[in-house]
Amino acid sequence: MTRTAFFISDGTGITAETLGRSLLAQFENVEIRMVTKPYIDNVDKAQALAEVIEATAVHDGERPIIIDTIVDEDVRKIISSAPGFKVDIFSTFLAPLEDELETHSTYSVGQTHSIGRDDVYMNRIDSVHFALDNDDGARTHQYDKAEIILVGVSRCGKTPTSLYLALQFGIRAANYPFTEDDLDEDGTLKLPRALAPYRRKLFGLTIDARRLAAIRSERRPNSRYCSMDQCMQEVQQAEALYRQMHIPYIDTTRFSVEEISTRMIAEAGLQRRFSPR
Amino acid sequence: MTRTAFFISDGTGITAETLGRSLLAQFENVEIRMVTKPYIDNVDKAQALAEVIEATAVHDGERPIIIDTIVDEDVRKIISSAPGFKVDIFSTFLAPLEDELETHSTYSVGQTHSIGRDDVYMNRIDSVHFALDNDDGARTHQYDKAEIILVGVSRCGKTPTSLYLALQFGIRAANYPFTEDDLDEDGTLKLPRALAPYRRKLFGLTIDARRLAAIRSERRPNSRYCSMDQCMQEVQQAEALYRQMHIPYIDTTRFSVEEISTRMIAEAGLQRRFSPR
Repeated sequence: MTRTAFFISDGTGITAETLGRSLLAQFENVEIRMVTKPYIDNVDKAQALAEVIEATAVHDGERPIIIDTIVDEDVRKIISSAPGFKVDIFSTFLAPLEDELETHSTYSVGQTHSIGRDDVYMNRIDSVHFALDNDDGARTHQYDKAEIILVGVSRCGKTPTSLYLALQFGIRAANYPFTEDDLDEDGTLKLPRALAPYRRKLFGLTIDARRLAAIRSERRPNSRYCSMDQCMQEVQQAEALYRQMHIPYIDTTRFSVEEISTRMIAEAGLQRRFSPR
Repeated sequence: MTRTAFFISDGTGITAETLGRSLLAQFENVEIRMVTKPYIDNVDKAQALAEVIEATAVHDGERPIIIDTIVDEDVRKIISSAPGFKVDIFSTFLAPLEDELETHSTYSVGQTHSIGRDDVYMNRIDSVHFALDNDDGARTHQYDKAEIILVGVSRCGKTPTSLYLALQFGIRAANYPFTEDDLDEDGTLKLPRALAPYRRKLFGLTIDARRLAAIRSERRPNSRYCSMDQCMQEVQQAEALYRQMHIPYIDTTRFSVEEISTRMIAEAGLQRRFSPR
């Protein structure tokens, strides 16, 4: 039996969705269809959604779960009239917080966005362009401006991670891939010269060789680049270099981009500049 | 008087941070210092953090606000022993959900990550590389594979938005900048030929000309590119084209990348493929 959960918001829906997924992930043995409904910001949209919820309840044979961050009272009333099990985030937590902070909450739509919006915006955009300009070792002369420099073999996850650090946290991340040019005459990986002055900014990524081979073979099937031998050798050399140079590193095989990024921030002691929502 | 809020988690801290910021944003007139503490996943780290919380309470002269998503009972007990006003997300909502779903929650660390991890991961990585390959009109021959194609003048926010769509939601977004090459002999902006077959995938971005001039002048100060005249003319032409061609569009001046992306998804009827956390 499948149940349905609605994540409803008058804004982006990101808070309701993030919390909702965290909560429902604790129920492994229940099949739950998750539906996000953002920007439910007037009575007409609320009415239409209430009808969808009602139809879903009939279809599923069970009332849907409703997790919402709606602020407007009229909208909230209409959603409440629909059949559902409600997890009302704001009304649950705001009243006790008002007592604790000895003040009323403004409780207004999209309030988050007014706080330091311009600064944070510019910072994120700058960081994204920095990540793009300094992607894949394309340039190395701006490394003095980087807060962190990700290193690792090709396709171990450097680019998505550096972009996530920029977009989500406004952190300036460059990345540099190890290539054959970085091997010495014995075929051993050496710390590339461009990175030497920035050893303290380096953060390594590594990955299971089998997984790497699978990822690379999607890009260039049947190449040396994607062969198990080549992948194993590159990964071993990268890890040896990390240990030798005391470069902190993370194995990306089992982690999501969020986890890789937040672990990196925590280990490197960087500052999150969280984006407004 | 400044108060301190701790967002504490044994995982990335993203759920606690997202919810915490949403809640505290409702208290405009209280100055709150926000500190995220992710990966508090053993008793030692919990003990060290409890001491930080205690020192903060003494320093602030008020107990800190503690918003957490800790699962481990031993860790939770230690954090509870510190002086703070607790917003305990899981214990507040999981018990009623267990009743509703008539089952016990697994309530285990990082449970989210086990669900369809590989598929979602590959999808996001593919989408990021798609966005990079199809950034800034660099290529147009893959537009048949795009789910959405962002259009607009240079520096109106296309690149960050397409990367956010990829990273956060696994959506394949290309982007195409209008340039002088897209003007006809009268100097009027026309729909570029490469976009004509994909009119239904197009989504326009626009921006306040003054803001655009400010952003551009950071990149190329004192150029025609960043002059008010040039910016006004480009923006007017882009908006005229959107209206004429019935291309939906969003003004990015007042919105964060999250809002632009989620509004786009809602209006274009795309499917969010939410990332695991």
